[in-house]
Amino acid sequence: MSQEQVLDERLNNYGLADPSRRRLLVGSAGAMAAVSLLGLSPLSRAEEPKTLPEYAAWKDRNALIVHSANTMETERGAIGNGVITPTGRLFVRNNLPPPPAGIIENADAWEVRIEGVRNPRTLSLGELKTMGVTTVASVLQCSGNGRAFFPHGASGTQWTVGAAGCVMWTGIPLKDLADALGGLAENARYITGTGGESLPDGLDPASIVVERSIPTRALDSALLAREMNDEPLTRAHGGPLRLVVPGYYGVNNVKYVKTIAFTEEQTNAKIQTSGYRVREVGKSGSPDQPSMWEMNVKSWVTAPLESGRAGRNMIYGVAFGGTVAVEKVEVSTDGGKSWHPARFLGPDLGPYAWRPFVLAADLPAGEHRIVSRATDAEGNRQPEGRTENERGYGHNGWSDHGVTVTLS
Amino acid sequence: MSQEQVLDERLNNYGLADPSRRRLLVGSAGAMAAVSLLGLSPLSRAEEPKTLPEYAAWKDRNALIVHSANTMETERGAIGNGVITPTGRLFVRNNLPPPPAGIIENADAWEVRIEGVRNPRTLSLGELKTMGVTTVASVLQCSGNGRAFFPHGASGTQWTVGAAGCVMWTGIPLKDLADALGGLAENARYITGTGGESLPDGLDPASIVVERSIPTRALDSALLAREMNDEPLTRAHGGPLRLVVPGYYGVNNVKYVKTIAFTEEQTNAKIQTSGYRVREVGKSGSPDQPSMWEMNVKSWVTAPLESGRAGRNMIYGVAFGGTVAVEKVEVSTDGGKSWHPARFLGPDLGPYAWRPFVLAADLPAGEHRIVSRATDAEGNRQPEGRTENERGYGHNGWSDHGVTVTLS
Repeated sequence: MSQEQVLDERLNNYGLADPSRRRLLVGSAGAMAAVSLLGLSPLSRAEEPKTLPEYAAWKDRNALIVHSANTMETERGAIGNGVITPTGRLFVRNNLPPPPAGIIENADAWEVRIEGVRNPRTLSLGELKTMGVTTVASVLQCSGNGRAFFPHGASGTQWTVGAAGCVMWTGIPLKDLADALGGLAENARYITGTGGESLPDGLDPASIVVERSIPTRALDSALLAREMNDEPLTRAHGGPLRLVVPGYYGVNNVKYVKTIAFTEEQTNAKIQTSGYRVREVGKSGSPDQPSMWEMNVKSWVTAPLESGRAGRNMIYGVAFGGTVAVEKVEVSTDGGKSWHPARFLGPDLGPYAWRPFVLAADLPAGEHRIVSRATDAEGNRQPEGRTENERGYGHNGWSDHGVTVTLS
Repeated sequence: MSQEQVLDERLNNYGLADPSRRRLLVGSAGAMAAVSLLGLSPLSRAEEPKTLPEYAAWKDRNALIVHSANTMETERGAIGNGVITPTGRLFVRNNLPPPPAGIIENADAWEVRIEGVRNPRTLSLGELKTMGVTTVASVLQCSGNGRAFFPHGASGTQWTVGAAGCVMWTGIPLKDLADALGGLAENARYITGTGGESLPDGLDPASIVVERSIPTRALDSALLAREMNDEPLTRAHGGPLRLVVPGYYGVNNVKYVKTIAFTEEQTNAKIQTSGYRVREVGKSGSPDQPSMWEMNVKSWVTAPLESGRAGRNMIYGVAFGGTVAVEKVEVSTDGGKSWHPARFLGPDLGPYAWRPFVLAADLPAGEHRIVSRATDAEGNRQPEGRTENERGYGHNGWSDHGVTVTLS
């Protein structure tokens, strides 16, 4: 494992070994040092943790696959067919351990610094509440959702389909906030958000800080969210305040956000420069490679799974288009030989939301390969295969995401 | 209290006294007999129950005013500003104690009889699942929501604003089901739903059964719901199967539904013939009076409440139009002298859903009377006053629903 890979692992997993992939930490003195500095104990790699971590203890344990104390995935069978994912079933992915519980108890006192505007200012959450409000439904999805399907053994959490959900966010539009502070500084090309996690001593902050830059084209849709699904944002999901960028991969939605800076350049934090970069298998990450920003069009089947009864079956799934509305979904029950248009279920919550879909199909006894294929409003359609890449990012190939069901 | 009123009380409260109105049960031997037959103990009338009943023990106690074991209201301050009410905060109103918990554990075995179609049939919930599915957002509201504002002391639970919420329902469209069974019988004018609660011996079933008839004009929107907010329908809300009639008052959404009959006449159950009838104060209920079917246009403020800080305030509330989409909301901070258009917050979930609204207002120190007034797409607007009526039904007057807030 290269030095860069070790650092990547540390950034992405922060010393919490992923039991489903045993490549982590081993032989990495630097990562072990980080673990030690934070007072964390590596989890046993032999089995899935039995319990949820303290900060997510209120979650529905039965709906989740607990990969580690910082990575919990929704079971495919628990994704459901709703337009909104109940918070208790939503996946969790923290890049660093969360700040202490006190930040939630005194949420209105949480402060965020706004820089790169004409009149930079530090504002409390209490103040933000009176400055503007919007509510937006959007899909939250980890860049590595689908990583488990890559045959080369991409390192990182082995997410299948459940590192995704669709939730309602409420908070202040970032555009309103920037306008209230005099507008963006000249030459601002990026929105750079910094998380408020504690960083361990003895390591270069840039190597570990959760700080992400996204292009200012996201300014009109981004918000600083303080509520999810009409409840105060929990610590598990970045409360009291989180940068939410609808249609962008999860990592860009910086939790515990302490600083928003409108910058001319992208941050030099490792999580930006080499982390979350799409590159060929075996290559190291670098700033010239595509960053995990806008999500691509994607869908997968959520029911039936594994087995069922022959005859009329209702095939359910979810589909979304990232920053572009999803327009249609087709379902195949013969592994992609023939396709049938599925119907969307429930109200349309806007371009950033997912749409549950359903297809009624009469299926004989036997084994069936059920796959789904979504197309967005710009005509982008899920490909059949993977785009092979070192870290297993952005997988939206329909073939790997299908299910094999035996009906009797 | 007249014999009719006693019976009404028994129908509506089933021996569970409402502690906020002490007119119930007193001197009513029949009601006491019903209590005894069902093995229930009347609650103390001196104070609000401290605990939630067993079948609703999973609810958020802090969000609810517990009037009795069968009537729990969402606190005005817990209604929130979301497009969907989290299930844990949703009000509960049962007309009879719920069936035992076993009906949920074996939900797919629940059977419903469909009559008044060309091919009457009994179907299990498991069978219904393969016959059709829809997801609809709609407001659920008790007919007596707002009863506490009637000065004549309307009997029944003293709901203020919290006997309402907006939730997602998933189940089979009733129209699909009727079509699958050959269509409606000739002369069918009503959809009559019957609840599956146990009825006490020794009483005329028609005097106590929860059986409601609604006009067949609701056929295109009604469904048999098995999920609420993407989770299996709980016993507190009528699971495993409930008749849901979007835009109609709560009582028509028959819980634990055992029979759907398409009928030429309305049921002769007391809850239909004299219950839920709008009549002058002092009059008894009778079939010639309007029945509580379609809801009227309504809104109320949810924040701020009681006190706050002078300066910029965000005024929140919810608004809906029953079977007609709500089109606009105006807010007044001077008790209705001047009005300002509020902005809807979050996605539009369709004509039966409520829309949260918000208005930013700069308010000086002092006392302010904040009221809201909604108008639906057909131009119906909330009146200022009440329509006085014996049981305190259908109150949508904006004046009573306002809040007085002291800012400092």
